[in-house]
Amino acid sequence: MIWLSLFAPCWKDPSTMTTTAAAEATVDTVETVPSFVQDSWWTPDAGSAASAVPVRDASTGEILAKVSTDGLDLAAVVDYGRTTGQEELGKLTFHQRALKLKELALYLNARREHFYTFSAQTGATKIDSMVDIDGGIGVLFTFGSKGRRELPNSQVVVDGPMEVLSKDGSFAGEHIYTRIPGVAVQINAFNFPVWGMLEKLAPAFIAGVPTIVKPATPTGYVAAAVVKAIIESNILPKGSLQLISGSVRGLLDVLDYRDLVAFTGSASTAQSLKSHPNVMQGGVRFTSETDSLNAAILGPDAVEGTPEFDAFIKSVVTEMTVKAGQKCTSIRRTIVPQELVQAVIAAIGKRVDERVVLGDPRAEGVTMGALASVGQLADVRAAVQLMLDAGGELAYGTLDSPSVTSADGATGVVRRGAFMSPVVLSWDDPEAEAIHSLEAFGPVSSVIGYKDLADAVRLAARGGGSLVASVCTNDPSVARELVTGIAAHHGRVLMLNREDARSSTGHGSPVPHLVHGGPGRAGGGEELGGIRSVMHHMQRTAIQGSPNMLTAVTGVWHAGADRNFTADTEGMHPFRKSLETLRIGDAVRSGLRQVTLEDITAFANSTGDTFYAHTNPEAAEANPFFPGIVAHGYLLLAWGAGLFVEPAPGPVLANYGLENLRFITPVAAGDSIRVTLTAKKIIPRETDEYGEVSWDAVLTNQNDEIVATYDVLTLVEK
Amino acid sequence: MIWLSLFAPCWKDPSTMTTTAAAEATVDTVETVPSFVQDSWWTPDAGSAASAVPVRDASTGEILAKVSTDGLDLAAVVDYGRTTGQEELGKLTFHQRALKLKELALYLNARREHFYTFSAQTGATKIDSMVDIDGGIGVLFTFGSKGRRELPNSQVVVDGPMEVLSKDGSFAGEHIYTRIPGVAVQINAFNFPVWGMLEKLAPAFIAGVPTIVKPATPTGYVAAAVVKAIIESNILPKGSLQLISGSVRGLLDVLDYRDLVAFTGSASTAQSLKSHPNVMQGGVRFTSETDSLNAAILGPDAVEGTPEFDAFIKSVVTEMTVKAGQKCTSIRRTIVPQELVQAVIAAIGKRVDERVVLGDPRAEGVTMGALASVGQLADVRAAVQLMLDAGGELAYGTLDSPSVTSADGATGVVRRGAFMSPVVLSWDDPEAEAIHSLEAFGPVSSVIGYKDLADAVRLAARGGGSLVASVCTNDPSVARELVTGIAAHHGRVLMLNREDARSSTGHGSPVPHLVHGGPGRAGGGEELGGIRSVMHHMQRTAIQGSPNMLTAVTGVWHAGADRNFTADTEGMHPFRKSLETLRIGDAVRSGLRQVTLEDITAFANSTGDTFYAHTNPEAAEANPFFPGIVAHGYLLLAWGAGLFVEPAPGPVLANYGLENLRFITPVAAGDSIRVTLTAKKIIPRETDEYGEVSWDAVLTNQNDEIVATYDVLTLVEK
Repeated sequence: MIWLSLFAPCWKDPSTMTTTAAAEATVDTVETVPSFVQDSWWTPDAGSAASAVPVRDASTGEILAKVSTDGLDLAAVVDYGRTTGQEELGKLTFHQRALKLKELALYLNARREHFYTFSAQTGATKIDSMVDIDGGIGVLFTFGSKGRRELPNSQVVVDGPMEVLSKDGSFAGEHIYTRIPGVAVQINAFNFPVWGMLEKLAPAFIAGVPTIVKPATPTGYVAAAVVKAIIESNILPKGSLQLISGSVRGLLDVLDYRDLVAFTGSASTAQSLKSHPNVMQGGVRFTSETDSLNAAILGPDAVEGTPEFDAFIKSVVTEMTVKAGQKCTSIRRTIVPQELVQAVIAAIGKRVDERVVLGDPRAEGVTMGALASVGQLADVRAAVQLMLDAGGELAYGTLDSPSVTSADGATGVVRRGAFMSPVVLSWDDPEAEAIHSLEAFGPVSSVIGYKDLADAVRLAARGGGSLVASVCTNDPSVARELVTGIAAHHGRVLMLNREDARSSTGHGSPVPHLVHGGPGRAGGGEELGGIRSVMHHMQRTAIQGSPNMLTAVTGVWHAGADRNFTADTEGMHPFRKSLETLRIGDAVRSGLRQVTLEDITAFANSTGDTFYAHTNPEAAEANPFFPGIVAHGYLLLAWGAGLFVEPAPGPVLANYGLENLRFITPVAAGDSIRVTLTAKKIIPRETDEYGEVSWDAVLTNQNDEIVATYDVLTLVEK
Repeated sequence: MIWLSLFAPCWKDPSTMTTTAAAEATVDTVETVPSFVQDSWWTPDAGSAASAVPVRDASTGEILAKVSTDGLDLAAVVDYGRTTGQEELGKLTFHQRALKLKELALYLNARREHFYTFSAQTGATKIDSMVDIDGGIGVLFTFGSKGRRELPNSQVVVDGPMEVLSKDGSFAGEHIYTRIPGVAVQINAFNFPVWGMLEKLAPAFIAGVPTIVKPATPTGYVAAAVVKAIIESNILPKGSLQLISGSVRGLLDVLDYRDLVAFTGSASTAQSLKSHPNVMQGGVRFTSETDSLNAAILGPDAVEGTPEFDAFIKSVVTEMTVKAGQKCTSIRRTIVPQELVQAVIAAIGKRVDERVVLGDPRAEGVTMGALASVGQLADVRAAVQLMLDAGGELAYGTLDSPSVTSADGATGVVRRGAFMSPVVLSWDDPEAEAIHSLEAFGPVSSVIGYKDLADAVRLAARGGGSLVASVCTNDPSVARELVTGIAAHHGRVLMLNREDARSSTGHGSPVPHLVHGGPGRAGGGEELGGIRSVMHHMQRTAIQGSPNMLTAVTGVWHAGADRNFTADTEGMHPFRKSLETLRIGDAVRSGLRQVTLEDITAFANSTGDTFYAHTNPEAAEANPFFPGIVAHGYLLLAWGAGLFVEPAPGPVLANYGLENLRFITPVAAGDSIRVTLTAKKIIPRETDEYGEVSWDAVLTNQNDEIVATYDVLTLVEK
């Protein structure tokens, strides 16, 4: 009956309700986890409940709720995203969307405890729940920040520099990203219902693409609880998030090349989705992140007694026990120098014995919870049995039902609970195919030995493409050889040593700043990675045209486009124009100022920069790049500022930096320079009374040769 | 018998041989186009010639050669690439590979006339051949240059900045690219046998990935002639290029996630390749570039008499006739203001009448050649007939066999030649599905009318994803609305107006600097785009670790990693070390120098930068960022140089630029600054006696607060 709370006028603590309602619940009496589509909560008509699937508490087996999408009009859901969702998101810039994510993160962060109670029912310990819930909210914070720091405050992203394609400069090209014109369908795995949803929602939202999220059935109610809070917050625009609780059979039938499917789950499901005609012929963008046989490699230097050995053992045990090993990033293959195999197995066993308390996550002191369902438990046991049949040996742990701590503190075997003890497998033959191809998606790892570094690289690559590998060594040359050897087979590689053993975020934890995904068996996809994942929701398009047209489309001034010399047209230096009135292309061009030998000498003396090219005529002339004594580059920059600056207080508050400076033609004594400064990018800030303006600066000499080019970065008041 | 020349001791002119050998050639008497595999030329045993496919001259129908791969061991070919090819390419850096491409480009460029004679047999005019051959060589030149200018001189590419992941800075992450550990299989289309091969070879080669190229049967002999020259040049390392002339049935069976297939051709073939289990489950990286229904949109301002109208008509006719319209980038849908439909059709017809001379490309004055084969001709005619049945009307041209100019100058219908006249279709209903989904891969275009800009965008998008669209307008706001509206449906958008009408490279021409490919019907792939396409041959991997370990793996010094103060350890300023002896992390740290108010005033007076923050205490204090009068940023930079410079001549030749400058903490009168300079990247040049060194520069004040950070770019002698 736990689900009632979703629609109860106030939120109750599910854990208190569990005890009262436990025994009696049946599929007929429990509520249906609702979907949120077309701006409304939706559940099937009462009549169609026959095909509903029950959802159970992982530790007790109690039926909590059911899911069903019988009668849901999936085409209408997609159409709502493509129309209302696209339209509403299209009203916002990248910065405005990012700010909404930050606001949402703060809102959800204040409600974490509430979400934890839902999460505990999935078998998750408090720490597991934090990985899922705090981790998911953390992704929102990161994208809320990166979306404003690393993207323009507009809707088009320029990718890379302009490429001049004609001799006269009248024709050029560059690349832009614009959002895909459909929906992002996110099909998630059962193990991280909240993180899995938010890590996909965040980049899609920043890109401006509406999300349709389909959580996995066994734990989808946790995602639904979070979606309920999101909807109540009223922060996100209409149509930007829809939730389908239950089967999405038929959804691919209504998708096309405008849409994207981001799948996390088993390779077999990924494959069946991928083979849909709308993917194969219709061009639906499909990415998948599937389980993989991740490796951890212990360096030959990291023998017992070293900080690296300890960090390695700790990491392996953590990856076996957090989320009961149900992480697509868990360490399945522990690859160690062959002479250290026994020591590693013993150390893992010792640490499990000392640290791991298996039981209902709601009980005091429990550090490892149940698998997500008894079905999952059966699958893991079956996989381990296959590995035993293939030559593996149980070096630690058991396949028998373990004694565990129940929610009330009692210990014993819980018949309907999905509990499993950590299991370490050893192998006589490290080449056995089962090690490198069979995945037991639970607290299971194989320990195998390698002969030398090349052998370790080869064994890690046997996984056929993985999400992540660890390399544990304090020897930089070992790290280099292992990492460059295995990188192309992995989406992420963690290097653990004494320097980062404490500060590392861990082998199993994707971070929003870095890509998550991997080649081959890992699914071939790429998620997260900061703004990289926003780009996965956008189409890169090459555009070609005159600099004026490139300027018009991108909103960024391009070299060669028209300039507006505002002193002539408006009687005003562009530095006197506020952010609101300044326009791309507004420009100022100074007069010429002559540089004398005395100027150069004085500059050398005052700055201390007495480099021979500025002080010694003979030595300067011998330098391959200089005609003789030349002005300091920094003199030219400083004089440039002197030539373009407006001394009196005005909207330009500060010059906070400089980019892309290149000195092209040296300036000898007697030459003159002038500067042309043109407003290139104008980025108003959403939360400040000023914004960033970057100015294209060109220094030229008396012969109109280019002396230097750079971008001046300023803060300008609105 | 033309093929003989491939192995003849000297090259003869194929066009002279055609006339002598024309009538008698049969499959039994012609030679087999050879494959080049495992460092040898290969043809099937004589006995297996039964299944050989004949290849014919497009204009005369004469049998030129045959192709067959009966008995070829494809697994051995792939294995040779993965072993020898990877190993040999692995000995070279990006710059060394790029130099080889430049060398190869020069070699092939000197042999263009020879390749043209092969090309003419495919129905290509001289201009068509230049698009194919000179275009392909141009790609090699571009990558030869970009590979050295835009990549490090090593084997690992760092992607984006380091992300600090722990509060104490001991743990950080970033992204690297390393080459995929397999082969790049390139399956090309018949229309551009040389360009299609070289545009895929170049990025794979720079990445360090061995290529196996499979040209299309009807024109593969032209590719083989170029491969023969490549092999004779002896420029490329062993195993880096293999050629399969003929069927590659079974090739996908031996590929896995380490490999890449880049396919260009029909959507149906792409789909059948994509559905192979090794792609669906095995993770073979598959990209395709297929034909599409590209649009050209005429802006409402571009009425008759404007330069844009003329440029538009010229572009449409060019795209219909170059390569006889057999380009995946040709304009299939000409979308114009509805009131201009008739004027556009008339203008196209007029220009075709005036400019197009159809015939054997070897005849004088011919401007449009044959389709590649009579099979191709039948396909195009059938597609046009379907469009006529669906409501299209023949507004210009005919489906009858046209009278053409033969090689000997005679005119008339050539029975076995694959000639077709340009055809323009008009439509009462611009919504007819056939316009937007049926592609006649020849000199055929439909002209349809739009009501307003939104309608034009919608009609262009009806193509379901295209390679390229043109937008022809001189109104920047029209360009912005059309381009941002259609961008997500296209891989490339060309803006034509009076500014670039003459300098534009044209609607149909992919350029190596910009991506080629498109979403949906266009195949969903991406090729070219400069270094972007090199990255498609590499795996992006997130790496995490301490700054020291990130430094070890990337060869680039990372903030937070150890520094080697060479004055202490080697008694030497790092500027005194040559490129060969300088090491990443070599550093110098200056003493403190105090900045006085007098210094600031003097700097303001000498540079002319009298901005109030440096001259007016009250105004400076009122600025939100400054405590009062502060030193000029450019004073700090110049003093920084004064603090780190070594005045006497030495290996450091010049400071050629600066990157990523950010001013963090203002420096007030009385504050002191010091600089710490650390060798960050060392990039030796292959062709000069010096290289580039970028130095991490940090200015700090007397309280060790960071004043500014930047990268100093220098040229240093080897």
